[in-house]
Amino acid sequence: MHAINQYQDFFISYLKAQSISREPKNLYDPIIYILDLGGKRIRPVLTLMAAEVFDANYEKALPAAMAVEVFHNFSLVHDDIMDEAPLRRGEVTVHEKWDLNTGILSGDAMLILAYQYFEQYEAPVFMELAKLFSKTALEVCEGQQWDVDFETRDDVTIAEYLKMIEYKTAVLVAAAMKMGALVAGTTKENACLIYEFGLYLGLAFQLQDDYLDAFGNPETFGKQVGGDIIENKKTYLYLKAMEFSSNDVSNKLKTLFATQPTDSTAKIEIVKEIFNTSGASKATQQAMQDFTFKAFETLDRMDISKEKKEILKAFGENLMGRKV
Amino acid sequence: MHAINQYQDFFISYLKAQSISREPKNLYDPIIYILDLGGKRIRPVLTLMAAEVFDANYEKALPAAMAVEVFHNFSLVHDDIMDEAPLRRGEVTVHEKWDLNTGILSGDAMLILAYQYFEQYEAPVFMELAKLFSKTALEVCEGQQWDVDFETRDDVTIAEYLKMIEYKTAVLVAAAMKMGALVAGTTKENACLIYEFGLYLGLAFQLQDDYLDAFGNPETFGKQVGGDIIENKKTYLYLKAMEFSSNDVSNKLKTLFATQPTDSTAKIEIVKEIFNTSGASKATQQAMQDFTFKAFETLDRMDISKEKKEILKAFGENLMGRKV
Repeated sequence: MHAINQYQDFFISYLKAQSISREPKNLYDPIIYILDLGGKRIRPVLTLMAAEVFDANYEKALPAAMAVEVFHNFSLVHDDIMDEAPLRRGEVTVHEKWDLNTGILSGDAMLILAYQYFEQYEAPVFMELAKLFSKTALEVCEGQQWDVDFETRDDVTIAEYLKMIEYKTAVLVAAAMKMGALVAGTTKENACLIYEFGLYLGLAFQLQDDYLDAFGNPETFGKQVGGDIIENKKTYLYLKAMEFSSNDVSNKLKTLFATQPTDSTAKIEIVKEIFNTSGASKATQQAMQDFTFKAFETLDRMDISKEKKEILKAFGENLMGRKV
Repeated sequence: MHAINQYQDFFISYLKAQSISREPKNLYDPIIYILDLGGKRIRPVLTLMAAEVFDANYEKALPAAMAVEVFHNFSLVHDDIMDEAPLRRGEVTVHEKWDLNTGILSGDAMLILAYQYFEQYEAPVFMELAKLFSKTALEVCEGQQWDVDFETRDDVTIAEYLKMIEYKTAVLVAAAMKMGALVAGTTKENACLIYEFGLYLGLAFQLQDDYLDAFGNPETFGKQVGGDIIENKKTYLYLKAMEFSSNDVSNKLKTLFATQPTDSTAKIEIVKEIFNTSGASKATQQAMQDFTFKAFETLDRMDISKEKKEILKAFGENLMGRKV
């Protein structure tokens, strides 16, 4: 096993060695652009790590890791169009740098390219990977659709919200890890357990993201702190605050989430105050912990060495230990 | 073997029996909508027909035929967004009936659904189908990109145009037929030959489409006659007219193709006149015939009964015998 940053390096070397540049340039240049924007490469790293947890060499998992990263970036390109996002990782988004049509078409090509990376495996493994990938990709689309639908609904339940983030975020983390297991050819049971591990960790991670979006340190958090509040996003924090608050407070929150003031400083402060006093912040942290614990529980049932379990646990703790 | 309209019926029954309707409705309803809009179902029919040409039962090829049709409709949904088309087969397009985001996301889901239909085959056949499908789908994206690129170029060559329609249209016809061959498990040689047959027929078909767009009978040609001329599309007719004409005439044509008059009646008549007098119309019909002939030539090398060859030939003649 290697350290996380080593897996990152292995993956980036592999990514750079791909010759994606082809004619027509207007189709492939945006693909190279978005893939080069960086990011932490968490998903492909998880694929490589999972392969080694189940006693395969990480190199064997590189094409699968690449498929996961290409798919993730496909979803970013299309999501950025839908969200009308001007920036991604501090750089201009594809549809802004080129145009809408390029964003759509290059995204489509990426989804297909992702499948092609599985062609480097033998037929039985190819089929397992492609099946898992299709199921996951469709769930990600469903999650995105739920997210869009929730924007215009004010009766979203916690259960629905959790299902949405499970589909939109967690299943890809889970599938990334299971792909490593499939490439390694471990037992069906182990493959299912690492999927569960990834799913719970993905849920914890997304809740943490919700939490940090409001309470993160602006200097270390990457995104604009308060962004979800500005955009009136009904996150776990919001839904819990609505659940826990008296009519007065919940009405106030609802009213605030129907406005988009030019200067949102005051709004952000009031909303954060409600998140804290209502107990929503605590509930969110509790849910993060619960999901992380559930992830760790799957390790007990996994048929791998104690050392490997410690590595997975350390990774989870590291991921969930992002500074608030 | 069955008649074309029987294969259509078999396919439509299978299509209707699919339970695509699922939650979230806003993702799956547009998919059902576009798949129900109809069309001649040429591509899936070709898959079923090819399977029986190579001695398999058409039923075995139904999932592959469905994948082809779902993919074709995916490309229509995304192309309609890019072309800002309000209508498709006389009905409102998906992005008009719903919105842009729905068009993008439902299209994405269709591309994934297409792959899932291959899961009904055993791993070796699954892999062959998925590989052919990915290669084809990527070429269709490339063809669409060339088409977009050509709009703003005035130095497009005949060779480039033919490559564009090969990728945008012909490869899917070719792949549809090869999928039938793969499902039937015929020889590699036969599978390659039926692909070639489909490719040449697809090229002839697209050139015929270009021709009919200008010279078709408004009462029988589904689309608006003169549509390509109105939109200044540099089709085979246009490129050949530019090649064959004196400077005077080609400059006139170029000027006409830089205008979009409200009433295009006169423009259409003048352009058609130039297409005829320049010899472009004749050259297009000649190219249609040449490609059809090339398609039929592949039959000589195919290892199937004389009777089957006659059926494929009759299908080609029928397809190319659309009334002008």
